[in-house]
Amino acid sequence: MRVVRSINDMRNVIADWRRTGATVGLVPTMGGVHAGHLSLIRVAGEHSDQVIATLFVNPSQFSLDEDFDAYPRDEDKDLQMFGEAGASLLFAPPIEEIYPNGHVTKVHVEGLSSLLEGKFRPQYLTGVSTVVSKLLIQAMADVAVFGEKDYQQLQVIRRMARDLDIPTVILGAPTIREYDGLAMSSRNRYLSAAERPHAGRLFSAISDIARATAEGADPIPLCNAAERRLIESGFRQVDYITVRDANTLEQYRGPGTPGRVLAAAWLGKARLIDNLDV
Amino acid sequence: MRVVRSINDMRNVIADWRRTGATVGLVPTMGGVHAGHLSLIRVAGEHSDQVIATLFVNPSQFSLDEDFDAYPRDEDKDLQMFGEAGASLLFAPPIEEIYPNGHVTKVHVEGLSSLLEGKFRPQYLTGVSTVVSKLLIQAMADVAVFGEKDYQQLQVIRRMARDLDIPTVILGAPTIREYDGLAMSSRNRYLSAAERPHAGRLFSAISDIARATAEGADPIPLCNAAERRLIESGFRQVDYITVRDANTLEQYRGPGTPGRVLAAAWLGKARLIDNLDV
Repeated sequence: MRVVRSINDMRNVIADWRRTGATVGLVPTMGGVHAGHLSLIRVAGEHSDQVIATLFVNPSQFSLDEDFDAYPRDEDKDLQMFGEAGASLLFAPPIEEIYPNGHVTKVHVEGLSSLLEGKFRPQYLTGVSTVVSKLLIQAMADVAVFGEKDYQQLQVIRRMARDLDIPTVILGAPTIREYDGLAMSSRNRYLSAAERPHAGRLFSAISDIARATAEGADPIPLCNAAERRLIESGFRQVDYITVRDANTLEQYRGPGTPGRVLAAAWLGKARLIDNLDV
Repeated sequence: MRVVRSINDMRNVIADWRRTGATVGLVPTMGGVHAGHLSLIRVAGEHSDQVIATLFVNPSQFSLDEDFDAYPRDEDKDLQMFGEAGASLLFAPPIEEIYPNGHVTKVHVEGLSSLLEGKFRPQYLTGVSTVVSKLLIQAMADVAVFGEKDYQQLQVIRRMARDLDIPTVILGAPTIREYDGLAMSSRNRYLSAAERPHAGRLFSAISDIARATAEGADPIPLCNAAERRLIESGFRQVDYITVRDANTLEQYRGPGTPGRVLAAAWLGKARLIDNLDV
């Protein structure tokens, strides 16, 4: 599996593929590869002939108090796992290739970037829409695959790609979970051994809410009760647990309309997020 | 000369050209075509085999108190002039093709969009960088040509295209002027017959400043004196007249560094802007 570090080199590989008529899939990641990422590679492989994994820990989506420095970095291991899952190219640029001196342009998805995660992580979603717009324009792939685990991020990326007329189909891939329902995430490693057994309760909580809401229950008291139970079972803080319209992430419009349960909560040093279709 | 109104139709024409090996040039305009626009078409034709003119009066770059409704619209005349100058395709989309329902993404060039014009027209440059990023991504042309008359806009577009890795070469084309130096502009039609003879004084003023600054004079007193003289000769208001670094539009760094004189001033109902190399 080949590794390229410059946009030009990636474009040259893609141009060679294009000349043979091959289609191209892109899977942007920040590394810390786990089974969730591998499923993205597989989904991309089902929709394209050649799959590019990208590995870039994007500084612009971290606040100063977040874990940019601590974020797991093990390129050799990531490379091997991407290759086994079926990727044929790794694009792993240094920071100055993505943000050269004087880079000042931001791609901002208004509204959608300011609610939920946007309230707690003000830079995160604009950092994502900026770097992903760049990666999409760099590769001009036929499809790009992102995990539904970061559901709001996926909606922001869909909106950005549509609004900027980027001709790449954005695919969401289902969340991959541990035995107890915990959504796989590079940040799960911040859980202590004592905390880990409780982490599955976030998934249980949103599952219960999704089921009851689908059956017509009012989600607001359900979410309030779930928040209390999470705190009682050892979660340090619940940033939000809520049912929203699945497309706009604004207020849920009730039975018969698309709904999504979304939650973010702190267990020790780990901020867990998860979501589920109603 | 063919006219298309959808992004898809434009992309299909371009794909046909690409299959023959042709290169493509793009000239985004808001119509109100004059000799300045025609020179952009000609410059594009010198750098590419097929030239697309676009005609779209972009609402997002007008403030509510600006002249969106009054902006000149005469597609038949524009079409004929573009064709005579050598364009082979006109892309003239309706508003909903560029901003469909739910469009919320903004492309913002920080810093560069907030100074000079940005102080007086807060929405203008973000409106421009957003719509131009879309047009560039839609066409993926080899070159795109913009007038130096809107110098700050040109610098914003250059920066945006570089920052988003859009693989289109951005070319600036020299300002085309009337007999007395007045820069050609669709908005010159807002000048009354009585005002028109005075309009060339803006060009005289920046010419004098450019020449003296190039010879080593301090531009600040020159600009202050020029502002007074413009007001004395009938200009209603001078928004700015200043010498700046030609690339960043921040403070001019003195002799031997790239400088640009930039000015904006009101004569009656017309806001004239102009600029000149030091």
